[in-house]
Amino acid sequence: MSDKRLQGIFTPNLVPYTADGGINEGELRRYVDWLIERGVHGLYPNGSTGEFTRFTPEERRRIVAIIADQTAGRVPILAGAAEANVRETLSACEYYASLGIRAVAIVAPFYYKLSPASVYAYFKEIGDHTPIDVTLYNIPMFASPIDVPTIQRLSEECERIVAIKDSSGEIPHMIRMIQAVRPNRPDFSFLTGWDAALMPMILVGCDGGTNASSGVVPELTRRLYDLTRSHQIDAARQIQYDLVQLFDTMIYSAEFPEGFRAAVNLRGFNMGQGRQPLSSEQQTDLSALSSELQCLLSAHGFTDQPVGGCPAAPPTASDRAEVSAIVQQVVAELNRRGLM
Amino acid sequence: MSDKRLQGIFTPNLVPYTADGGINEGELRRYVDWLIERGVHGLYPNGSTGEFTRFTPEERRRIVAIIADQTAGRVPILAGAAEANVRETLSACEYYASLGIRAVAIVAPFYYKLSPASVYAYFKEIGDHTPIDVTLYNIPMFASPIDVPTIQRLSEECERIVAIKDSSGEIPHMIRMIQAVRPNRPDFSFLTGWDAALMPMILVGCDGGTNASSGVVPELTRRLYDLTRSHQIDAARQIQYDLVQLFDTMIYSAEFPEGFRAAVNLRGFNMGQGRQPLSSEQQTDLSALSSELQCLLSAHGFTDQPVGGCPAAPPTASDRAEVSAIVQQVVAELNRRGLM
Amino acid sequence: MSDKRLQGIFTPNLVPYTADGGINEGELRRYVDWLIERGVHGLYPNGSTGEFTRFTPEERRRIVAIIADQTAGRVPILAGAAEANVRETLSACEYYASLGIRAVAIVAPFYYKLSPASVYAYFKEIGDHTPIDVTLYNIPMFASPIDVPTIQRLSEECERIVAIKDSSGEIPHMIRMIQAVRPNRPDFSFLTGWDAALMPMILVGCDGGTNASSGVVPELTRRLYDLTRSHQIDAARQIQYDLVQLFDTMIYSAEFPEGFRAAVNLRGFNMGQGRQPLSSEQQTDLSALSSELQCLLSAHGFTDQPVGGCPAAPPTASDRAEVSAIVQQVVAELNRRGLM
Amino acid sequence: MSDKRLQGIFTPNLVPYTADGGINEGELRRYVDWLIERGVHGLYPNGSTGEFTRFTPEERRRIVAIIADQTAGRVPILAGAAEANVRETLSACEYYASLGIRAVAIVAPFYYKLSPASVYAYFKEIGDHTPIDVTLYNIPMFASPIDVPTIQRLSEECERIVAIKDSSGEIPHMIRMIQAVRPNRPDFSFLTGWDAALMPMILVGCDGGTNASSGVVPELTRRLYDLTRSHQIDAARQIQYDLVQLFDTMIYSAEFPEGFRAAVNLRGFNMGQGRQPLSSEQQTDLSALSSELQCLLSAHGFTDQPVGGCPAAPPTASDRAEVSAIVQQVVAELNRRGLM
Repeated sequence: MSDKRLQGIFTPNLVPYTADGGINEGELRRYVDWLIERGVHGLYPNGSTGEFTRFTPEERRRIVAIIADQTAGRVPILAGAAEANVRETLSACEYYASLGIRAVAIVAPFYYKLSPASVYAYFKEIGDHTPIDVTLYNIPMFASPIDVPTIQRLSEECERIVAIKDSSGEIPHMIRMIQAVRPNRPDFSFLTGWDAALMPMILVGCDGGTNASSGVVPELTRRLYDLTRSHQIDAARQIQYDLVQLFDTMIYSAEFPEGFRAAVNLRGFNMGQGRQPLSSEQQTDLSALSSELQCLLSAHGFTDQPVGGCPAAPPTASDRAEVSAIVQQVVAELNRRGLM
Repeated sequence: MSDKRLQGIFTPNLVPYTADGGINEGELRRYVDWLIERGVHGLYPNGSTGEFTRFTPEERRRIVAIIADQTAGRVPILAGAAEANVRETLSACEYYASLGIRAVAIVAPFYYKLSPASVYAYFKEIGDHTPIDVTLYNIPMFASPIDVPTIQRLSEECERIVAIKDSSGEIPHMIRMIQAVRPNRPDFSFLTGWDAALMPMILVGCDGGTNASSGVVPELTRRLYDLTRSHQIDAARQIQYDLVQLFDTMIYSAEFPEGFRAAVNLRGFNMGQGRQPLSSEQQTDLSALSSELQCLLSAHGFTDQPVGGCPAAPPTASDRAEVSAIVQQVVAELNRRGLM
Repeated sequence: MSDKRLQGIFTPNLVPYTADGGINEGELRRYVDWLIERGVHGLYPNGSTGEFTRFTPEERRRIVAIIADQTAGRVPILAGAAEANVRETLSACEYYASLGIRAVAIVAPFYYKLSPASVYAYFKEIGDHTPIDVTLYNIPMFASPIDVPTIQRLSEECERIVAIKDSSGEIPHMIRMIQAVRPNRPDFSFLTGWDAALMPMILVGCDGGTNASSGVVPELTRRLYDLTRSHQIDAARQIQYDLVQLFDTMIYSAEFPEGFRAAVNLRGFNMGQGRQPLSSEQQTDLSALSSELQCLLSAHGFTDQPVGGCPAAPPTASDRAEVSAIVQQVVAELNRRGLM
Repeated sequence: MSDKRLQGIFTPNLVPYTADGGINEGELRRYVDWLIERGVHGLYPNGSTGEFTRFTPEERRRIVAIIADQTAGRVPILAGAAEANVRETLSACEYYASLGIRAVAIVAPFYYKLSPASVYAYFKEIGDHTPIDVTLYNIPMFASPIDVPTIQRLSEECERIVAIKDSSGEIPHMIRMIQAVRPNRPDFSFLTGWDAALMPMILVGCDGGTNASSGVVPELTRRLYDLTRSHQIDAARQIQYDLVQLFDTMIYSAEFPEGFRAAVNLRGFNMGQGRQPLSSEQQTDLSALSSELQCLLSAHGFTDQPVGGCPAAPPTASDRAEVSAIVQQVVAELNRRGLM
């Protein structure tokens, strides 16, 4: 039964925008092909990376329809299906089932922070009526957490709930989930959404991941997955280290997912301007980030170096402390003049 | 200029449901009349209490349209207008303007936790293009926080941004906002969304509140508002104490806003079953809560006592410790048998 | 019975240091006199402001002994008495009782975050054996929280527990504590440790405060206390606003309690260098802060303006945004060069 | 140079108490021998597990002296040396150096939550004057966090700072530290304090751990360490799973470190009653926990089963839901009667 599990790296699809803020269908289709050609095991539209909350219900359906059409069965698709309430969510599930989607992923209710009992009741209602396999989506930094007893109970009571995607990044939590569920449900799949722990997550028993980095460097995440699965620990570790550096730069240097969008631009796609407005300071920052990302990507041969080249070696902490001291003085002076 | 400020208690409207989960228009209209007759200064549909995230965009518009029609200008309306992105939000603003709404309230972006720069850019874009006055809505437990420098900057740059509704409940934060904004914008209004601090909030300079309790006991919140504004401190304090007890019971004993819905049922409305599914344990809890609420409301003469009566006096901590010890023993025994 | 309650502003004593890092006894005695002359109702050594964790057990005793000797009964003293464990704490209590201290204040256990049951057991053991009145000290940002049921139970079971000092700053929490305890213990006192909410705390029923600002501007906190107690709301509010500005500057611009120490220096005391080492950047910041504090204090006539004067008016948010943009550009450039 | 690194599992020593609450020297010496005989690589007194905050400065020194004497050089000792301030801490370092201790471990300042600049300044002062090698101790749930730039800078500037013990349990954080430090300091050691992630921590590059579980089941943690270092992934994973179950039971079912103390009792030591008082409910819970731990330990052959035996199989989530429903009804009834 365990060979039917969802497995491998499912790329959480970014959506390219047209100049007037719509969905850039042509570029999206081209991006889908590019990802599949580079070895991703599946696609995952309408996730957090795909900015699902920034689209209307109609747009969310259209995104999945385009990707399903372009994929044409080459890889399985996991489609984000969370809508305003259970009824709307089930209606989206019906539609995605009609498109031949492999499974839907449903994030726990967000905005309100629900108790475990409510999270259970929500997924139970969905699990009992869904026409398509369901992946639970746990992302406690954004949505109500799905705790281990809730996952265990849902896995025992709802056979159409077949997987969990966990973006907490916590290894012990992953172990606890697997221990609680796998004995009774060997077909249940565990996917991690936290790129910075992909290798150790697989080593403790995860079946794969939905990792935003795989939309930027699918070659690298695929290689990491293969090396880890075959227990080539030292080689895998080195790629995991590189991935942490790249992931941290993309996720912490700009408003999510702008850093990922900037990096995909560098891989040759026209991602357009995002729907969340940016201040002029943020636009400046994004240019600096793009330059930094280009250096990281060029080190792996994925792009050329930016005009002007890249720093020879990372600065030491002392270099940074010196610069920091200069900045502090400027700031103190502005402060003294009442300007900050 | 300051006499044009939004002032008083705006009731965040709960929405009654029909048996099949739709909007119960008749009961909603009856509830609107009841609130206005009991002295609320304004109405506030599509807030957190109004479960705005659980409705479709079309339903949100319909709720405002019904309330505007029923209110017929008797009190001003503040309508929640946050949609999936800036374009959709502005489109909702146009519609609400066409209904003669006094102002919209727009919550900061949620799900993603945005930086202050992004929150600024979001509201700046809206503030520059809105056809209707805008109230910022800060609720850091659910959405990206709006910090003081952001509020100050927006108030200086966008004259159509005219108020902030703050649900943080923090007195010092309220003082900081008022200090930063009022000197340049005497017309800017400060509303608190945290019922448990309504009296002290008004005393430090707040103009009013959007308080869920006012949908349950509008008589009490109105009296508290009037006593506080006229500096009848001792009388106001006693009502504030009662309100804390009632508010805590409604907000902490059930998934928000179910406790408030249960209490409005006790005031004579048929609120129907909420859209967030409840487990059977939760339904049991809700019955116990309803009984407890009935005792609290009957103490103020708002309802009869429940069948079987109410406890004579609150139990002491030692009573509770004794009961807790019994429960602990049961739990320990279940634990020993491996059942918990 | 309620007239025996601890009441008024107890100043949490800072400790001046000698050049070699010891306790500066002469300056401490001079500071005690200065505070009493300016109207503080009591003194409070070995609190968080008094850096109790940075002294040895012997030093903590010596600080209280000096202050008790210098005070000579002019005002009551509340002495922090928390030591490594219950036995050591009770031993300190004996000593402080022998010095004629009014009551001790004991912070909940820190480092480990204890459950309410453990916090109860800890204070119960102390409350049953203490030879001196005990004030519970709740400061959840630093120590295990003391929740309302625990306070209620301790107040019912231990008559030598006579007060709580709460530094959470949460108004509803204060109301809940008073509601739970006052009916059975009219002699129990409630003190707030959060200066930025002193006026509203008193208005909802607090008996006073242990406020670090009172060590810097005892004249102001005393006036605020008196105006608030006599319900002169408008006058009190203005002082509360000024206090928020001063408090925020002292608490958020430097490592606590360095901002308060810098301000007391400006009032004419030689506080010496603190025991927590500062980096050179932090020392620069502290000079800038001192200059800013001098402007705030001079506005109230407590000091002269600094050499070079003070800014005429606070900069607007747009001024600050402009400066921020310049700083951003510098930072982006340093970033581009790999220096930050 | 890297072969000089601190490596392996250092057991954070629990301290057995006598009937009157003192240090039980005989039992402590017997426990030290027992641990060494079961293969732990080193000992670590005065850590969080060793309840260092609950001892006086004199007692902390005595604990290390006893352990050093009993160990007699068989394994290296890492001694917790944090005292009230830098001067006292350096004085303890001198003493521990005189005992032939391998290195000290110094936790970041706690109670006050310090900024990275202050944490740097604190350790820099210590690193510049210590007579003994220093291990930084990062435990953000209890003390000020030590961030990656601070670790990097300290490792570059202070050669006597030779290691970090990190109890955050975050894999990506561990990777970031190693990436930042190892290139310049191949002799620098990384130890994890989070037992539930020991295997994956070692696989991403950690040198070992200071794991409380190793004081309970030293045989198991040693086997896990050896299997992991030799990349026997599948065998290591199974032990890691068992360890998570045991660790979770010990750490989440009682106030830390009482669960660990209860388990060591089961291994044949008389740990005595802890210094933190327990309520009667907590004592009941601890008995139930002890029984549960005995079942877990007997499954590995470390103890006999408790009288009455162990549950045949873990209950399912549905069993638990049923029991939970019964408990809920009891609670609702008590609630209705005003007793809870």
